[in-house]
Amino acid sequence: MNSYSDIDGKDRAPLLSLSAPLEHGEVALVGAGPGAADLLTLAAARLLAACDVVVHDALVSDGVLQMASPAAALIFAGKRGGRASTAQSDISALMIEMARAGKRVVRLKGGDSFVFGRGGEEVRALAAAGIKFRVIPGVTSGVAAPAMAGISVTDREVNASLAFLTGHEVDAKSRIDWKALVEAFPVLVLYMAAKNLSKVARELRNAGLSAATPVAAIYAATLPEEHYSQADLETAAQGNMAVQSPTIVVIGDVVSQRVAWR
Amino acid sequence: MNSYSDIDGKDRAPLLSLSAPLEHGEVALVGAGPGAADLLTLAAARLLAACDVVVHDALVSDGVLQMASPAAALIFAGKRGGRASTAQSDISALMIEMARAGKRVVRLKGGDSFVFGRGGEEVRALAAAGIKFRVIPGVTSGVAAPAMAGISVTDREVNASLAFLTGHEVDAKSRIDWKALVEAFPVLVLYMAAKNLSKVARELRNAGLSAATPVAAIYAATLPEEHYSQADLETAAQGNMAVQSPTIVVIGDVVSQRVAWR
Repeated sequence: MNSYSDIDGKDRAPLLSLSAPLEHGEVALVGAGPGAADLLTLAAARLLAACDVVVHDALVSDGVLQMASPAAALIFAGKRGGRASTAQSDISALMIEMARAGKRVVRLKGGDSFVFGRGGEEVRALAAAGIKFRVIPGVTSGVAAPAMAGISVTDREVNASLAFLTGHEVDAKSRIDWKALVEAFPVLVLYMAAKNLSKVARELRNAGLSAATPVAAIYAATLPEEHYSQADLETAAQGNMAVQSPTIVVIGDVVSQRVAWR
Repeated sequence: MNSYSDIDGKDRAPLLSLSAPLEHGEVALVGAGPGAADLLTLAAARLLAACDVVVHDALVSDGVLQMASPAAALIFAGKRGGRASTAQSDISALMIEMARAGKRVVRLKGGDSFVFGRGGEEVRALAAAGIKFRVIPGVTSGVAAPAMAGISVTDREVNASLAFLTGHEVDAKSRIDWKALVEAFPVLVLYMAAKNLSKVARELRNAGLSAATPVAAIYAATLPEEHYSQADLETAAQGNMAVQSPTIVVIGDVVSQRVAWR
């Protein structure tokens, strides 16, 4: 290991370029961004162009996959609401097996690997197996999707704080304290929001958030099929705001500040 | 305008490529990412390589500025803790003036323009002036900086929600409800955290967050001078965690799950 954590920094090793060529047997966890290929980072594009295997999830677009080396094997190992999915342990085992076989592996996830992407579990598995890896952050969809609709998720006049949460935590086991959430935050961004939007909206209404609070839903942001819709919280709570996966939802007064630019 | 908001989508205009060449008189609000030039998006790199003016803030690294066309004028219009700064209205006026002069303008901000970047104010000014613009999201530092340290800001075992906030709201006018924040959010990410870290930590302690809660500080993430430090909340509250700007701070048990990889 280098001296990354040293306090004095005197003998700090030069930082590796994030886009230096992968070694054989190395894995890169790469955030693919929201969808459009031109929202890949330069590092992501370089690593994709010179790898042997791409292990990707369902949220990675065809345009992004086309950036991979023509010689690379593309392996789908994803999860998506309602579809058959690959167990997390199987995905990690696959990456470890590929790396041990000397492959240069890109693990490609929609958005950023460390924002509701299970990247933490994967790096723990890789580290435990002694596999060399690096992490390439991506443009997270919770920021990019609102931006495509002209919504700035923070605004000096509205909020000094911002919450990201998943749309999955709506059952009895939910770890979300809805009342505290509503008290704490003027702006909420929901990932994976399509399936449970009405349930989330009802929790927020029950926790005291106003019926008139604006709700924006951005489907397939940055892709040709992108679609924007907007309603108020009560409409969403009543199940009258139609959304389909993958959708990012923004709730709060920043929606009213929207400046449509496309 | 195209039919971006239409429900049926039948006559939806093709989405513009985000990286299509800028027109003369057009402005692009571009997120520069956390610092390393290879964390620019492809769209950002393309627009920088073919523009006339770059209006940038203090958080944009030299490496990123070197990606601009050699013919482009580089104009500093930034704010940074403690330094003389350019008024927001002056920055917007400058961009409008440049665009009206037919320049292809890239407005370049560290991280993402819409996450504590005042991008919302700038697009309102541009729209009000009738200037054509587009928004290119960037990799936000609140995700990238922890990733460089091996910290996934979400982890299935720790949190289903995540709060971003600025380190600026610690005075009597603060809009932060610290008690609700602590109840609602197991993980907090602070932007612009250096100056007021001890004050924020004291607010969190007073609101009930445990003294032993781990705190990670990542300075100058992805740049050669990057530095990682870690302490507990009580140490930070007592002013014994030295940090300097620009620093991203992560507070919560995801810090304990860190897998150092560099």
